[in-house]
Amino acid sequence: MMRSAQASAREPAAKPDASPNQEAAAYEQIFQWLEDYIDRNEVQLGDPLPSEDEIMRETQMSRSSVREAITRLRALGIVDTRRKRGMWLVRSPRLLDLIRLLSRPNIPPNFMGHAFGYRCALELGLCSEIFRRATPEDIKELRAIFEKMVEHGHQPKVWNDYDRQFHLKLIAITGNEIAIWMSQLLNPFFQTLSQYTTSLSDHVRALHESIVTSLEQRNAEAFYQAMHEHNYWKLAFDKLEWTSFTKSTP
Amino acid sequence: MMRSAQASAREPAAKPDASPNQEAAAYEQIFQWLEDYIDRNEVQLGDPLPSEDEIMRETQMSRSSVREAITRLRALGIVDTRRKRGMWLVRSPRLLDLIRLLSRPNIPPNFMGHAFGYRCALELGLCSEIFRRATPEDIKELRAIFEKMVEHGHQPKVWNDYDRQFHLKLIAITGNEIAIWMSQLLNPFFQTLSQYTTSLSDHVRALHESIVTSLEQRNAEAFYQAMHEHNYWKLAFDKLEWTSFTKSTP
Repeated sequence: MMRSAQASAREPAAKPDASPNQEAAAYEQIFQWLEDYIDRNEVQLGDPLPSEDEIMRETQMSRSSVREAITRLRALGIVDTRRKRGMWLVRSPRLLDLIRLLSRPNIPPNFMGHAFGYRCALELGLCSEIFRRATPEDIKELRAIFEKMVEHGHQPKVWNDYDRQFHLKLIAITGNEIAIWMSQLLNPFFQTLSQYTTSLSDHVRALHESIVTSLEQRNAEAFYQAMHEHNYWKLAFDKLEWTSFTKSTP
Repeated sequence: MMRSAQASAREPAAKPDASPNQEAAAYEQIFQWLEDYIDRNEVQLGDPLPSEDEIMRETQMSRSSVREAITRLRALGIVDTRRKRGMWLVRSPRLLDLIRLLSRPNIPPNFMGHAFGYRCALELGLCSEIFRRATPEDIKELRAIFEKMVEHGHQPKVWNDYDRQFHLKLIAITGNEIAIWMSQLLNPFFQTLSQYTTSLSDHVRALHESIVTSLEQRNAEAFYQAMHEHNYWKLAFDKLEWTSFTKSTP
């Protein structure tokens, strides 16, 4: 990839190729150049970034494109600017990667493996908190979602909706807002899986039921076991390897 | 909080109070109103949102403020607009919460509990993947970071830096890019803890060393145990309850 080639060289970057359907998003190419610059020079939070003129010279982009890119980066809180101080880095450019990913109209080929793996890891890691914090109302709600899922087990789109609701509810029980936000953000992506889904199988039904039942019975060991059975296969034994979908990871 | 009051009422929202140091960010108040609108009306992805005129009327904000807010929401990929179709919701407004949090100049009082709990849960959930995927080079790198941490154990700021590097490396080993991004985004927040840090204690040193040693010896059981010892106390036995730092969670 161009990105890694640039990252290893100290020469001024060449103008990035404009792929046909991306020509409109000139700011995206400027983002890319700036991210490369940040990696190459190991820019830390608070460190200065190149000036508007320098970015224009290096990327060979128009002033209006560079300004649009800077406006967007400011809006995201990634950089800040002041007339005499210039521009500096405020937040990790990985925020840009995350936003870029979350606002893609179509899903990168290898994305689902990462998303599933992430969701499974988070649920496993939060397992003890879910058990500890679940109130009788929470458990009733989970049971109700599960019943709806079974009831609509022959409509892939519908039971998939309830499945996603079930997993959101599990995370919501913990009250950890960072986990909740990330789950809500990733949730729509799992919707696309409904196209591969058939009727709810006995196996999947049983996996969910044992999560609910063990909570109802306040059986911690059975709950951990159920959560592991549901999630673990997506990690170590998963066919979906987490190959990079954006760039080669360090 | 005003937010929940609005969310339960169906009356047109009153103009939000401009707190003295927030007057500049009129768009923030419009974001808030729109988030309330989305919650109140259970707006789903793809559903239409109020027009510019309607937002002006309801929030009593100027056209330029409303336009600035919409421009920012478009830049974030949260909404999309088209001349004849109006504006509609593209991505969960929770992205806004996340970005707002990540770009705050100061940390909300209860934030660190959530951030720590999240990091611990993620590391615990990814435990098996870290063990499975760690290469000899990864383990050598972890060992080197650990040695640096010990070497600078009397300089709180410095060993705290290496501590954060250590945890980033653990997540990086998994290759799960969503987990990696989130860790990189949250990482700077843990820096602020260095002000409460003293010299590296024998206990904390031992916690990290057993993670490295168990990996070097390829002892899975010892590794899981070490990861649990390091992380688990931050979850179930934590004094930092995950009380909401933004609003009451559902």
